[in-house]
Amino acid sequence: MRSDSEPLKLVLDTSLFVNPDVRVSLGTTPTEAFIAFLDLARRAPSLRFYMPPSIFEELMNFAQRDRIPAELLHHLTQKPPARYDLSTPGLFLYELVEEMRDRVNKGLRIAEQGVRAAASGRPVDDVIKETRRKYRDALREGVIDSKEDVDLVLLAYELRATLVSADLGALIWAGKLGIPWILPEKFREFVEARAEAV
Amino acid sequence: MRSDSEPLKLVLDTSLFVNPDVRVSLGTTPTEAFIAFLDLARRAPSLRFYMPPSIFEELMNFAQRDRIPAELLHHLTQKPPARYDLSTPGLFLYELVEEMRDRVNKGLRIAEQGVRAAASGRPVDDVIKETRRKYRDALREGVIDSKEDVDLVLLAYELRATLVSADLGALIWAGKLGIPWILPEKFREFVEARAEAV
Repeated sequence: MRSDSEPLKLVLDTSLFVNPDVRVSLGTTPTEAFIAFLDLARRAPSLRFYMPPSIFEELMNFAQRDRIPAELLHHLTQKPPARYDLSTPGLFLYELVEEMRDRVNKGLRIAEQGVRAAASGRPVDDVIKETRRKYRDALREGVIDSKEDVDLVLLAYELRATLVSADLGALIWAGKLGIPWILPEKFREFVEARAEAV
Repeated sequence: MRSDSEPLKLVLDTSLFVNPDVRVSLGTTPTEAFIAFLDLARRAPSLRFYMPPSIFEELMNFAQRDRIPAELLHHLTQKPPARYDLSTPGLFLYELVEEMRDRVNKGLRIAEQGVRAAASGRPVDDVIKETRRKYRDALREGVIDSKEDVDLVLLAYELRATLVSADLGALIWAGKLGIPWILPEKFREFVEARAEAV
């Protein structure tokens, strides 16, 4: 760790504490994982951690808010992106519109398949279930589709920070803006390597 | 007409020549309407007309390319937006993502309705037709959903030009960027009012 360097900024997503595959090294529940992270963060002053408030609220839906030690919370800065000041390249808009157009077309084909499957006599509940799953995969996987996603990407863009997320959509679209990222499942080791011995 | 003022820039959409309700004052076919416009443009030097090449190509799918007088074509500048240089406000991205999210959810409900209608025994072709229509209305009407739309909006944004289009999506999203517009069905009168007597 180079102590003379600028602190490295990291923007954190809920998925880090909620997605079981990613959380595993931090704790068995979202609350435990979040507390373990805050304690690690306390010992790593060369890192600065940020989370958009919208993402923090999302996390609090999964965690027990009253178990989180208040004295540790200041190691995670809650900051929304400056959404009225920031701007994104025109090319980003093109790519997003083209991507959504392809996905919207795919969604219609999935709807049509569902209609034909139901007409062929397959049980309607099965068809509805399958249609929902396929539709969500086609229209949501790998794209930014909520203001929380935009918050994550734009905050990392604004702060020139590294994005830590297990959400493929956020990572892909952050990548288009040149935002660095680290493997979310290596997050604990990454922070530990920079934590000072206590 | 103030002859001492800067020329007014206008970005034109295909819909002006293709949409029959809008075209009516210019001509009975897209080709006639386009030629009538070019002749008007020749007489209105206080106006500068622009069209993104992607939109021009779209128009040429409806018009008879070889009937268009080459000597008139230079009254319409074909220019794409500087898509690598331009940027749009962060807020625009938020609004687009939120809008698409609502529409994607609506699309899934339409797919489910289609599945249930087919399961209830309605003729499958009817259901498919209705599902397509509803789905396209829900996911495409009033939103920018193609690179041609983005070209129109960004070119007007770049040139600080007035957008002339009958496409609600382009107009709504151009409006969010502060782009002026005129009623497309008044386009002929608008140009005539500025045309010099010959």
